[in-house]
Amino acid sequence: MSYTVNESHNSQLRCWVASAHNPNTDFPIQNLPFGVFRRADSDEAARVGVAIGDQILDLSACLRQSLFDGLAAEAAQVCDQPTLNALLALGRSHWSALRQQISAVLREDGQAYQRDQEIGTKILLSMHDAELLLPVQIGDYTDFYASVHHATNVGSMFRPDNPLLPNYKYVPIGYHGRASSVVVSGAPVQRPNGQTRAPQADAPSFGPCKLLDYEMEIGLFVGPGNTLGQPIPIDQAEEQIFGLCLVNDWSARDIQTWEYQPLGPFLAKSFVTTISPWIVTLEALAPFRVPAFKRASDDPQPLSYLDSSADREQGGIDLTVEVYLASQQMRDGGVAPQRLSRGSFANMYWTIAQMLTHHASNGCNLRPGDLLASGTVSGASRDERGCLLELTWRGAEPIELPSGETRTFLQDGDEIILRGYCERADAARIGFGESRGVVQPAVAQSR
Amino acid sequence: MSYTVNESHNSQLRCWVASAHNPNTDFPIQNLPFGVFRRADSDEAARVGVAIGDQILDLSACLRQSLFDGLAAEAAQVCDQPTLNALLALGRSHWSALRQQISAVLREDGQAYQRDQEIGTKILLSMHDAELLLPVQIGDYTDFYASVHHATNVGSMFRPDNPLLPNYKYVPIGYHGRASSVVVSGAPVQRPNGQTRAPQADAPSFGPCKLLDYEMEIGLFVGPGNTLGQPIPIDQAEEQIFGLCLVNDWSARDIQTWEYQPLGPFLAKSFVTTISPWIVTLEALAPFRVPAFKRASDDPQPLSYLDSSADREQGGIDLTVEVYLASQQMRDGGVAPQRLSRGSFANMYWTIAQMLTHHASNGCNLRPGDLLASGTVSGASRDERGCLLELTWRGAEPIELPSGETRTFLQDGDEIILRGYCERADAARIGFGESRGVVQPAVAQSR
Repeated sequence: MSYTVNESHNSQLRCWVASAHNPNTDFPIQNLPFGVFRRADSDEAARVGVAIGDQILDLSACLRQSLFDGLAAEAAQVCDQPTLNALLALGRSHWSALRQQISAVLREDGQAYQRDQEIGTKILLSMHDAELLLPVQIGDYTDFYASVHHATNVGSMFRPDNPLLPNYKYVPIGYHGRASSVVVSGAPVQRPNGQTRAPQADAPSFGPCKLLDYEMEIGLFVGPGNTLGQPIPIDQAEEQIFGLCLVNDWSARDIQTWEYQPLGPFLAKSFVTTISPWIVTLEALAPFRVPAFKRASDDPQPLSYLDSSADREQGGIDLTVEVYLASQQMRDGGVAPQRLSRGSFANMYWTIAQMLTHHASNGCNLRPGDLLASGTVSGASRDERGCLLELTWRGAEPIELPSGETRTFLQDGDEIILRGYCERADAARIGFGESRGVVQPAVAQSR
Repeated sequence: MSYTVNESHNSQLRCWVASAHNPNTDFPIQNLPFGVFRRADSDEAARVGVAIGDQILDLSACLRQSLFDGLAAEAAQVCDQPTLNALLALGRSHWSALRQQISAVLREDGQAYQRDQEIGTKILLSMHDAELLLPVQIGDYTDFYASVHHATNVGSMFRPDNPLLPNYKYVPIGYHGRASSVVVSGAPVQRPNGQTRAPQADAPSFGPCKLLDYEMEIGLFVGPGNTLGQPIPIDQAEEQIFGLCLVNDWSARDIQTWEYQPLGPFLAKSFVTTISPWIVTLEALAPFRVPAFKRASDDPQPLSYLDSSADREQGGIDLTVEVYLASQQMRDGGVAPQRLSRGSFANMYWTIAQMLTHHASNGCNLRPGDLLASGTVSGASRDERGCLLELTWRGAEPIELPSGETRTFLQDGDEIILRGYCERADAARIGFGESRGVVQPAVAQSR
């Protein structure tokens, strides 16, 4: 069941944190995404915070100030930890109660602020003084393939006569990814070494990846989860979703081409995956829910375990995603990052509920903090393609950068910046912040 | 670097635990595998123990009796935990020191026993009074495909003209598995539901798997691991391997056939994976190291990052693996389990060092407690095939059971028992215990 729009979404709410009213902020009072921070240059423990404007609301400090009660206080009690996992395990009633009380704390007309207009000095920390950490201890990371546009584009490069496989419109295709190498925005992205085989070569060789790519994806974090053996019905799927983030599924295309048959991508993906530090709750996204992807008249209907009227009507999310590139030369010259694409998460063939329900349909247990990513978010038009493989059509159509450089795939020093946001005239803007990563040279092999 | 054979492997060692001298025991004093146990019907915390005959040596109790010093005492200090992860993180010097001192504690001529012949009452627990738990908190689980016989058999069913793909003899093919659903021997194995498409059908349907299979594999547990971005050279790979266990990678063949293109197996495997409770250390296996698989003269040599003289000479393990089946009818009638296959881990095309080094070759970080499984252990002859898909040739050649029943794939109530052991006339037998699981009916779907 989706969240309904409530007072916490009211676009007229006034917040006493001035930067939360900056029209460009990703983090107005209607958003309230969760992350894990540590005060920079301190030995304070890492703990859970909420982004508000350019500040971080310290939930443990709020608890010490007795700003929460009931379920919200219970939830805040597990926010003195270096991951969100314990909060995720509590479930939707706790998340929602905490959100409502955080919103009340931050409102200009709220009791907390009316009683003490210096409250900010006790419960806020500037983002400039904080280090943002990987917010979740990820048990398992699963990567889907939910954009039919991406699947069709990629398929048509490799199988021109048969771009989309027969299972695609029945099965939310996914595979297991590597959890250990998921890092938070800002971490370096080292070009991997690996086996590749040149097109006419007899044998492969081992060395630095030559076709390094990014993939713009949306990730979701699992809440309490299910017991091994017990599926999650589609109507209960969204109860299990805490929130969403940006995911860059960096991909080594030359390694992938050589290794992926018959068991799928492995080392082409496992060298690093970057996520954004703030998890935007599903509740914050309530004003932006839209119908699920409209299937063509000759598309099959989803099998009944993946079908519900609520999901058909509200399963989509009107979330815009953008990818920017800044080469080393551009950054050195003070040139702003170049936008490579802008797409919409509403274009995904499968909804987040369908992905989660399919995942658990065989009894596989999902646990608090598991990450499910959507696969590359691509749309029908060229500028909606969420990776270089598609944008440059496997290198055939290079991209020109404002510095005069061109790109087919990524060069050392390139920075990729993912952004995401929900915007509509009658609602507050809900932003996802950024996922950033700069490509570093491959390490020399020891032999 | 491999372990060398030392006094702890001496086949003449006498142990004061009588059952350790039973000629059929898997757990003589030369073995000393690690696991996690809890006293049944008690509220004692789970902790680390070592199998000896039909007893469990309680390492925390040994520490309280001051039986360890130096690195061994440091290692035993992290054995009061419900997983082996902290011990795995310590590394080889600690593991080896602990093994030497455990061996000394258990020797008839050792100081501990000579001083106190009642020492057993303080540090042993009968296996009959213990519950064995999943011994490791598995961060990531990776499954390889290292038997060329298995890959060729499976490939020839699906691609008769081209059974082995061109990458196979260069790349230790692997894929990410699901960590959350790894369970310990004895846990029920629920038949999964899933999407399958009948051979002539236009559309798939959702329901219980009809082609349920097991896969006999060997797993290894990673020790301290590597930092993200730093590969593990092949000559250092075995330093990173704590020990081995039996793995049953239960597989739903009909789900797999429909879902696995293009990203590999997903729900066909993630419903459950069963491991044996005792981890046999790599050091215990030192007397059974053999040359790596002998490649045919027209096979390529491994690329240099996967090649070392030590691994060529000692990279294999002469480990016999067996699979047994007992149907419900057989168990009800008191009929002994039927052996389905007997193979050797020495027949694997890739060594454990090659698998681990390949995994980290792109910089992917391995962490203490990660599980790497070998893929199905199959050999050249029919009775060496490690799964029903191969044994019955996709159902074409049913197996007859002593009860008069036949099997192509598994029926509800079937129990699969994996066993593994190293045996040679001049060495003590090193056994792996068992991995057991009984197939339960699929759950009814909620819609």
